Amino acid sequence: MRTAYHEQLTALNRILGEMCELSGTTMEHATNALLQADLEVAEDLLKDQERMATLSSAAEDQAFKLLALQAPVAGELREIVSGFQIVADIDRMYALALHVAKVARLRHPEPALPEEVRGYFAEMGRLAVRLAHGAHEVLGTLDPKAALALGADDDAMDDLHKHLFTVLMDREWPHGVAAAVDVTLLGRYYERFADHAVAVGRRVVFQATGKTPEQVVAEEN
Amino acid sequence: MRTAYHEQLTALNRILGEMCELSGTTMEHATNALLQADLEVAEDLLKDQERMATLSSAAEDQAFKLLALQAPVAGELREIVSGFQIVADIDRMYALALHVAKVARLRHPEPALPEEVRGYFAEMGRLAVRLAHGAHEVLGTLDPKAALALGADDDAMDDLHKHLFTVLMDREWPHGVAAAVDVTLLGRYYERFADHAVAVGRRVVFQATGKTPEQVVAEEN
Repeated sequence: MRTAYHEQLTALNRILGEMCELSGTTMEHATNALLQADLEVAEDLLKDQERMATLSSAAEDQAFKLLALQAPVAGELREIVSGFQIVADIDRMYALALHVAKVARLRHPEPALPEEVRGYFAEMGRLAVRLAHGAHEVLGTLDPKAALALGADDDAMDDLHKHLFTVLMDREWPHGVAAAVDVTLLGRYYERFADHAVAVGRRVVFQATGKTPEQVVAEEN
Repeated sequence: MRTAYHEQLTALNRILGEMCELSGTTMEHATNALLQADLEVAEDLLKDQERMATLSSAAEDQAFKLLALQAPVAGELREIVSGFQIVADIDRMYALALHVAKVARLRHPEPALPEEVRGYFAEMGRLAVRLAHGAHEVLGTLDPKAALALGADDDAMDDLHKHLFTVLMDREWPHGVAAAVDVTLLGRYYERFADHAVAVGRRVVFQATGKTPEQVVAEEN
């Protein structure tokens, strides 16, 4: 019975991992579309949303199966409920990646980003993709240390996001308000994407240890 | 057994309703703090976050109790899982209301909003509060029509949000980039608040009918 439970939980986490991966590659391509003002890439991403919808409902079905069939005990209930919450986090990551693609499409053939912030977005994109890969990995390994380590990339994202605002707020910003609005929203999409990836990591820590990340860190020190 | 289930589900929805109400009043006060550049109101909101944390974990505890004690069947499992998802939606509404308070605090003693967009935010605030009250109500009545009707206020919010951008994008916008960035982020906070309130309504429709809002509307036509 418990072996069946663990096998089915592993199957759930495998779907969740695939969802993370898809969010990550979507964000990767959306960032390329944004940086290169590539309409075709942006439109392909926006046309092809079925795979995530399929994965997302497969994950929920699998979680319901676990709830219904395995008569789970208290700790297991928490693990399964985490699964539902992780689905919501990854759905949101994916939606945010599509938001980036939409801005790229909306501004085409103009690039949405002025030259001096392109480097920020290249780096924020790189961090976002790495966070999604990292979340995928820890869903497989259930390694709490690796899950906690996602926080470092999120801190780097927050730093970039703050710096980006200092560039925007500079009195010499020469690109006008419209570009500033785009950059503000885009920055927020990347930052929220990272927050959700970290939330996935936090839930994995909880699945693996039954403790919050703060409790795990406190015990280590 | 089933009576006990329904009593406990009602108890869960009562806590969720209280959480909606608290999100709504927080957004109401945050909007006042924003419009009147009232530092004290903003700081009070940011100091006093314990009540929501308490309600939020009470709601999750109650949902776990339902999962563990009542041996729920398939439809009931979906209702309870909706409960967890509603907790996440309302937590986010509350966080967004606090974001508004933070902007008010950050810009004090200056008002964060230029004169010509104050009316937009007064109205967006009014809609946000009404949506939170509406979500509270439908959590009590489980009335699918009332739950679906929340969509109308959300449409009004989206319209305001769009208009707000036309004001910002006007070449004559005289308030500079910093104010535009604030207005962009604030607009997004209100819009997302409304989205989450509508999501609560959607889940209530599902709890009440076992159908998605789209299915319910299709059957009525």
